[in-house]
Amino acid sequence: MVAVDLGGTRMKCGLVAADGAVLHRETRPTPRAASDERGGGRVVLEALLETVVELSQKATADGHRVRAIGVVVPGVIDAEHGTVGAENLEWVATPVLAELKAAISDDVPIVLAHDVRAGGYAELRQGALAGTTNSMFLPLGTGIAAAMIVDGSLVSGDGYAGELGHSKFIYGDAAELCACGQWGCLETVASAAALARRYTARTGRTVDGAREVMELLAAGDPDAEQVWQDALAALVDALVLYTTLVAPTKIAIGGGLVGAGETLLQPLREGVHARLTFQREPEIVAAVLGEEAGMLGAAQMAWDRADEEGRA
Amino acid sequence: MVAVDLGGTRMKCGLVAADGAVLHRETRPTPRAASDERGGGRVVLEALLETVVELSQKATADGHRVRAIGVVVPGVIDAEHGTVGAENLEWVATPVLAELKAAISDDVPIVLAHDVRAGGYAELRQGALAGTTNSMFLPLGTGIAAAMIVDGSLVSGDGYAGELGHSKFIYGDAAELCACGQWGCLETVASAAALARRYTARTGRTVDGAREVMELLAAGDPDAEQVWQDALAALVDALVLYTTLVAPTKIAIGGGLVGAGETLLQPLREGVHARLTFQREPEIVAAVLGEEAGMLGAAQMAWDRADEEGRA
Repeated sequence: MVAVDLGGTRMKCGLVAADGAVLHRETRPTPRAASDERGGGRVVLEALLETVVELSQKATADGHRVRAIGVVVPGVIDAEHGTVGAENLEWVATPVLAELKAAISDDVPIVLAHDVRAGGYAELRQGALAGTTNSMFLPLGTGIAAAMIVDGSLVSGDGYAGELGHSKFIYGDAAELCACGQWGCLETVASAAALARRYTARTGRTVDGAREVMELLAAGDPDAEQVWQDALAALVDALVLYTTLVAPTKIAIGGGLVGAGETLLQPLREGVHARLTFQREPEIVAAVLGEEAGMLGAAQMAWDRADEEGRA
Repeated sequence: MVAVDLGGTRMKCGLVAADGAVLHRETRPTPRAASDERGGGRVVLEALLETVVELSQKATADGHRVRAIGVVVPGVIDAEHGTVGAENLEWVATPVLAELKAAISDDVPIVLAHDVRAGGYAELRQGALAGTTNSMFLPLGTGIAAAMIVDGSLVSGDGYAGELGHSKFIYGDAAELCACGQWGCLETVASAAALARRYTARTGRTVDGAREVMELLAAGDPDAEQVWQDALAALVDALVLYTTLVAPTKIAIGGGLVGAGETLLQPLREGVHARLTFQREPEIVAAVLGEEAGMLGAAQMAWDRADEEGRA
């Protein structure tokens, strides 16, 4: 499988064998949509098509047969029309699937998937959520979104489901305006971006991302401690609510923040345990596939599609 | 189909034809579990078995063939073992399915289902949610629970999913202790029971349930107005969160409170509309099957089971 995880700044690419082994991996820069005078994110689409074509050629040159292509995008996918809307790529109903089909001469199945859901699918099939039928993959990165596994299936909700990061867990005067236009979203206090922004807002001191806030926290900085406690409290609220509504047996936390390890996971476990009463308590673990989850999920979904079409 | 919706105070029973037509309906009292010295809710189980046997006999006497039996219970069903836990019936891992099978001599398929999920299934198959693939049935009665329809299926979560009524939407000093042991649950402000309790707590005046609070509201009583506004605000929070996480296209409100009609629905629609930004906006409507939803859902599920077994 040819697999590409198109991010806002980088494309994580791979050639993946049927057994999930990564035969080749590379990272390419994603061109900035705003840098293109033509608009409409055309420059991003062209870079994606070029990457997919070159990877397919490389696979063939290396003696492999391309069975399927999986592309993961950070936006809302209209599955019926094969179009994608992605604000930071300047894509508006962009016909990504049709363009990919036109660029690939062969009759190879192409799967277009949402980045977080693809990551969740990889964790479900070969990672931390393997064997579960009700679970959640929750990457805490620049943003926050959830991949929901419910009654054995990855939830799509026509492409709209899983926006736990834009659910309200901060009430009253403490609620901050989110980039999405709502107030008090989980993302405003618990994303990696929020940790850095909120530390700077409290102290006036610029920091090098969440990583520096975590270093300050380890060094006993009281402002870092407060920002961290706010994030943990909101995350506990979010995990308790998700558990009450959807009843997962396991929650895998991913994204950059899970680099904090038990500093993050242990308070989440304790906080959730203390709050639940009648609910089934989920196991809270670190995701295991790291930054490659999206790319591996794209490959897995592509493989499943090829498999289905082969059987049909 | 023989269908019984076992409630805490009443059993709503019916004989339902394959086309959904109700051939016979009756209501029987549910004996109080606490009235039985033997304990374990034995008296409730015996009443249920007697009812199912008598309805089956009536169906046969009326010249019908009993194809399947559907029983709906207000508790957590362990589908693997056919046991039910229901606090207010004093059932703890009670082997309801095995007892029903023993009581019914014929080899008729028996389906055991959760009351709110059965109601949601009826609304999905023949009611307000017909034709939807992502939607929610939310009865506001003595308690509050949701039947979630996600990607075309009714969600079970091993029997635990849908507890929106026990999700926290009241934060800070305003959060009240819920019967479930958590603080600030939706049920503490927005159930029919909560409206009456909170009105009495504010005014010291005993009222005849939510119905009287609604009459006081219509008459311009300021305390009723405050209690009602608190309920609406929490319901808007709950509907917005559900929409953000699960992306329904339609939400059907049921239960006793929906008797308030547009007094309830219009502010919910306006509140949700004002709050959503990037999400897909759901249609908010009244459920249509009323108090028979659970019984009709039991019949529908029983019919589907008979149909499956007939095909297999």
